[in-house]
Amino acid sequence: MSFAEVFAPPALEAGTLRITPLGGLGEVGRNMTVFELDGRLLIVDCGVLFPEENQPGVDLILPDFAPIKDRLGEVDGIVLTHGHEDHIGAVPYLLKERPDIPLIGSGLTLALVEAKLKEHRLKAFTLTVTEGQREKVGPFDLEFVAVNHSIPDALAVAIRTPAGTVLATGDFKMDQLPLDGRLTDLRAFARLGEEGVDLFMVDSTNADVPGFTALERSIGPVLDQVIAKAPRRVIVASFSSHIHRVQQVLDAAAAHGRRLAFLGRSMVRNMTIAEQLGYLQVPEGVLIDYKKAKDLPDDKIVYMSTGSQGEPMAVLSRMANLDHAIEPGPGDTVILASSLIPGNENAVYRVIDGLTKLGANVVHKGNAKVHVSGHAAAGELLYCYNIVGPRNVMPIHGEHRHLHANARLAQDTGVPAERTILGENGTVVDLRDGVAKVVGQLDLGFVYVDGSTVGEITDADLKDRRILGEEGFISVIVVVDSATGKIISGPEVHARGFAEDDAVFEDVKPKIAAALTEAARSGVRDSHALSQVVRRTIGRWVNQSLRRRPMIVPLVIEA
Amino acid sequence: MSFAEVFAPPALEAGTLRITPLGGLGEVGRNMTVFELDGRLLIVDCGVLFPEENQPGVDLILPDFAPIKDRLGEVDGIVLTHGHEDHIGAVPYLLKERPDIPLIGSGLTLALVEAKLKEHRLKAFTLTVTEGQREKVGPFDLEFVAVNHSIPDALAVAIRTPAGTVLATGDFKMDQLPLDGRLTDLRAFARLGEEGVDLFMVDSTNADVPGFTALERSIGPVLDQVIAKAPRRVIVASFSSHIHRVQQVLDAAAAHGRRLAFLGRSMVRNMTIAEQLGYLQVPEGVLIDYKKAKDLPDDKIVYMSTGSQGEPMAVLSRMANLDHAIEPGPGDTVILASSLIPGNENAVYRVIDGLTKLGANVVHKGNAKVHVSGHAAAGELLYCYNIVGPRNVMPIHGEHRHLHANARLAQDTGVPAERTILGENGTVVDLRDGVAKVVGQLDLGFVYVDGSTVGEITDADLKDRRILGEEGFISVIVVVDSATGKIISGPEVHARGFAEDDAVFEDVKPKIAAALTEAARSGVRDSHALSQVVRRTIGRWVNQSLRRRPMIVPLVIEA
Repeated sequence: MSFAEVFAPPALEAGTLRITPLGGLGEVGRNMTVFELDGRLLIVDCGVLFPEENQPGVDLILPDFAPIKDRLGEVDGIVLTHGHEDHIGAVPYLLKERPDIPLIGSGLTLALVEAKLKEHRLKAFTLTVTEGQREKVGPFDLEFVAVNHSIPDALAVAIRTPAGTVLATGDFKMDQLPLDGRLTDLRAFARLGEEGVDLFMVDSTNADVPGFTALERSIGPVLDQVIAKAPRRVIVASFSSHIHRVQQVLDAAAAHGRRLAFLGRSMVRNMTIAEQLGYLQVPEGVLIDYKKAKDLPDDKIVYMSTGSQGEPMAVLSRMANLDHAIEPGPGDTVILASSLIPGNENAVYRVIDGLTKLGANVVHKGNAKVHVSGHAAAGELLYCYNIVGPRNVMPIHGEHRHLHANARLAQDTGVPAERTILGENGTVVDLRDGVAKVVGQLDLGFVYVDGSTVGEITDADLKDRRILGEEGFISVIVVVDSATGKIISGPEVHARGFAEDDAVFEDVKPKIAAALTEAARSGVRDSHALSQVVRRTIGRWVNQSLRRRPMIVPLVIEA
Repeated sequence: MSFAEVFAPPALEAGTLRITPLGGLGEVGRNMTVFELDGRLLIVDCGVLFPEENQPGVDLILPDFAPIKDRLGEVDGIVLTHGHEDHIGAVPYLLKERPDIPLIGSGLTLALVEAKLKEHRLKAFTLTVTEGQREKVGPFDLEFVAVNHSIPDALAVAIRTPAGTVLATGDFKMDQLPLDGRLTDLRAFARLGEEGVDLFMVDSTNADVPGFTALERSIGPVLDQVIAKAPRRVIVASFSSHIHRVQQVLDAAAAHGRRLAFLGRSMVRNMTIAEQLGYLQVPEGVLIDYKKAKDLPDDKIVYMSTGSQGEPMAVLSRMANLDHAIEPGPGDTVILASSLIPGNENAVYRVIDGLTKLGANVVHKGNAKVHVSGHAAAGELLYCYNIVGPRNVMPIHGEHRHLHANARLAQDTGVPAERTILGENGTVVDLRDGVAKVVGQLDLGFVYVDGSTVGEITDADLKDRRILGEEGFISVIVVVDSATGKIISGPEVHARGFAEDDAVFEDVKPKIAAALTEAARSGVRDSHALSQVVRRTIGRWVNQSLRRRPMIVPLVIEA
C-alpha cells in the first residue's frame, strides 16, 4: 500500500525513541502512532477510517496492526487523545488481540470508549487523566495538555524520554472564546517549548485553510435566530459527539419555549453519557421523549438528530425518504449544524434535496453560519509553531495535501526543511540527540471490516466487487462427460446486473458449444482449461456485440 | 420515477401552448423541454446527465423520450442554446430515431454538435442563427438573444406564439465585463418584458448562491501571476469547452515566454474548432505539439489539459498516477482552473493528493481564485426578474433546492406564488391567456446508456449491481437426477467479491445437501423450487455465521 520505497529499519538502539505512525497519514481517519523505547511500546490513538466509494461494501477500515501484532505483550498503554471514531474506533479490534492493554484518556473519552467496548462485549483497564497531570507509563513520562476541539475534554500529550520530548497535539483548534472556557493551553505549549520539544506532531486537517477558524460562539446566535423564526417544527442534525453544538441547540430551544427530543441511537447514548458526566447542562423541563413530542404543537418542539452526513440509515435520511415516524413538511425547518466531510457531498445534497422537495426550509453551512470546523486553520498553526519552537516537526492527521501544507507552515516559522518529516503510514522515524530522521518504511495495508469479517477482504476482492458493481456478471454452466469431453447438458447462460434480456444469449450458446466440441476434439479434458475456452468465447462475444465487460464466470462440471 | 402524483393531461386545445420538460428539473443535466402548439412540436436542448455513484456502470443518462417517441414526425426543430454536454449530448440518440430533425443554434454550438454527431456517424440538417435573429419554425416564432456563459456563443430563446410568449434563458450569467464583450442582452430582455413575457423559464443552477458571480476577468491576473512565478513546468486543467479560460491561459503563456501544448482528445478537438471559427485567438508561435514540448526547458512550457473533474481516464488523473508520458514532479505547478462539480469531490481530491505527493504545487479553487462559475447567482437573477417582469415563472436547470431557491427569488420581485411553477421532469404546463398552469404529470424514467446498450438497463439491474458491488455473490451448483431428485454432483460453492477463503464453505455444503435430500424426500422435483431451498439454506448460514448478505445464485441442474 505504501507509495514510498519500502525498506527495513535497523535494529533499534538502546536510548533511541522510534516513532511509527500506522494510520492517519495520507488519509483523514484511523489515527494511530506507535512509540518504542528500550523494548517497550506506547500507542497514541487507535481509530477507524470510513471507506470511500472505491472500497464498496466495506464497513470500516482499521490500521494495519501487523508491525506490533507479535509484540502486544510489550505495549504499556494506549493514550486516547479524544473520543472521536477516527481516534478510538479501532480500540475494540486491538483489545480482541490482548484485552488487558491499559487505556489512558480523559473522563469523557474513556466513557465513550467504554460504551463502544460494551457493544463488543469487552471491558478494559482504564486510567483517567486530566490536563496538567503527569503519568509514568513504562519508560514513557507523559504529560497531558488541554486542547480545544469539536468534542469536550480533548488532550494533547507530551512524551518525555531520555531520547527527547515529543509533543503530539491530537486533533485541536485554538478557539479563543470557547463555550466551556477550556482553551488550548498555549501556556503549557510555551513551557514545553522552553524546556525543548524535539518532535512536534501536529494535526494537519485544516493546514491548507488560510486564516483562522471562526469562534464556536458565533454559531449560537444564528441557531437561536433560525429557531426563533421557525414557524413549525425544527429538526437539527449534527454529529452525535458534538456536545457543545447540542448544548447550543438545547439553550436555543429553552429560550424559545420549545422542548427537545433526541433522535438516533448514538445521539441518545452519547448525550446520556455527557449529561451524567456534567459535560451537557440540560435546562429543567426541556427534554422530552420523542414519542411524546408528537403531541406537542408544532412550534413547541426541536428534534436533535443524527444523519448530518447523509448516512442512508440515519434518522435524517430516513425522514427525507418518508421512512421515519416524523415526516417533514411545509413550514418545518431543518438545520444541518455540521461540516460536510469530503466524500459525503452527494449523500448530503440528496438529503437536502429530498427535504426541500417535501417543503421544508433547509438551513446548512452553504447558506448560513451554522457550523465551524474543529481543527486549527493555517493562522492558528503558525501561532503554535512560534510558541513551541520545535526542533523537528512531523505533520500528522491528513491527506497528503494537508501534510504538505502543514510542513510549509512549519518551515515558514523557521523549522528547517530537513527537520520537517513528510511521512506516510509505516514511515519509521528515530529520534535521538534532538534529531529525528526517517530510518525505514514499512509496507502497510488496509484492514477491512465487513460484517463480522475482519481483515479477510483483499484488494483483489474489492476489484471483483467493482467489476461486479459496474457491469454485473454472466455465468455459463456446462456439464461435460469427463471421459469424452462431450457436452451432456448446457450451456446454460445466466446474467445478473447485466441488463439484457436472456434471449440475447441464444446467439452465443452455439458458439460456446462449438468451441467446447473443438477443444474436446483436440484432446482437452481438464475442466479448468475448458472453462477458459468458455470464458474467451463469451467474453469476446459480449465485448464485440455489446461493448461491455461483465465478469465472466464459467462453470464446467464433469459428470 | 416521478415523486409527484402522476395524472394524464387533457387533450390539448387549439391555440394553447403546452410545455413539458423531459429533463433538467430535479437534476443538473439532461436538459430538454418540449413545446407543443396545434399539433406541432419544438424541442429546446437535448442533453445528457452524468451518473452518480448509485448508478454504477452507467456511462450516460438520457432524457426519457417516451412522450414524443411516436410523434417525432411532428417535431419542427431542436433549438440548442449552447454547446455543453448537458444541453447537446443526447442529440445523437434522438437523431438515431429520426435523423432529419433540423438543429438550430449558434455557429459554435452547431460546430460542437456536428463533431459529436460525426463520432456517431450521423449528419444533421442545421440552421445557424445569431443573436437578434428571428426565425419562424413551424408555428413557433423564435427570437434569439445573446447570453453570457462559460462557453461562447450561448443564446436564450424567446418563443412567440398566439398563446403567449415564452423566454427560456438557457444557461447564463451576467458578467458585466465579459472577456469577449458579449453581454447577456438585458436590453433585449427589457424589450421582451415591455412586449410581455408570459412564461419565463430560468436557469436555477446558482439560485441558492447569494450575491453575484465574480468577473471572469478577475481570473486572468491570478493565472498570470501563478504562471509568472512557476519555477518549472505548468499544467493547467479545465473543461475542454471553456474557450475563454483557455484564451486566458494562452495569453499568460505568451506573456511569460512559454509555449503551450494541448493535451486530451476533447481539448484538442474543441480548440481546433474554436480557433477555426475565430472564438480562440492563438498568439503567433505559442502553440506546440506536446510531443515536441518535451524538448523545451521546463520553464518554457504550459500544458493545457482535460481532467479537471478527476475523471479517471483523463490526462490529469493519469499524470497523478504516473500513467502518462508527462510525469509531474517537484517544482511543477498544476492549476485546476475549473469548478468542482458536486459528486466529483473524491475523485478531484484524489488527483490533487496524488500530484501533491509527487511534489507538484497544486493551485485550485480552494486555495486561489482560479475559477468563477458560469451561472447567474441570486443577485443577478433578481435583476432579470425585475427587468423582464414575467407573468409566470418556471425555474429550470437544477436540483430541487435550486428550483425552490429560484422560485423564491421570483416571488421576492413580485411574481405571485400561484404564478411560480415548481415542476419536475414530466410536469405538463399549459399556457393560454397569460396564465400558465400544471395540467398533468407524466411518469418519466431514466434512460441509461452502457456501452452500446441504450435503455435496456433497469433500476432492478442497478439494484443487482449495487448488491454485487457491495457484497459480491455466492453461486451454488448442484446436479440432480431429474427422476429421483437425488444429488449426482455437488454442491459446488463458488464466491466472487465475497472475500473469504473457499474453505469456509465446507461447513455449509452438508447442510445444503441435507436440505435438498429432505426436499427430494418430500417430493419436490421442480428445479426452481429446489433452487429456493438452496438459496434459503446458504443465505441463512452466511447471514448468521458471517453477518453478510451477498447475492446468492443457486443453480440446480437436472441431468
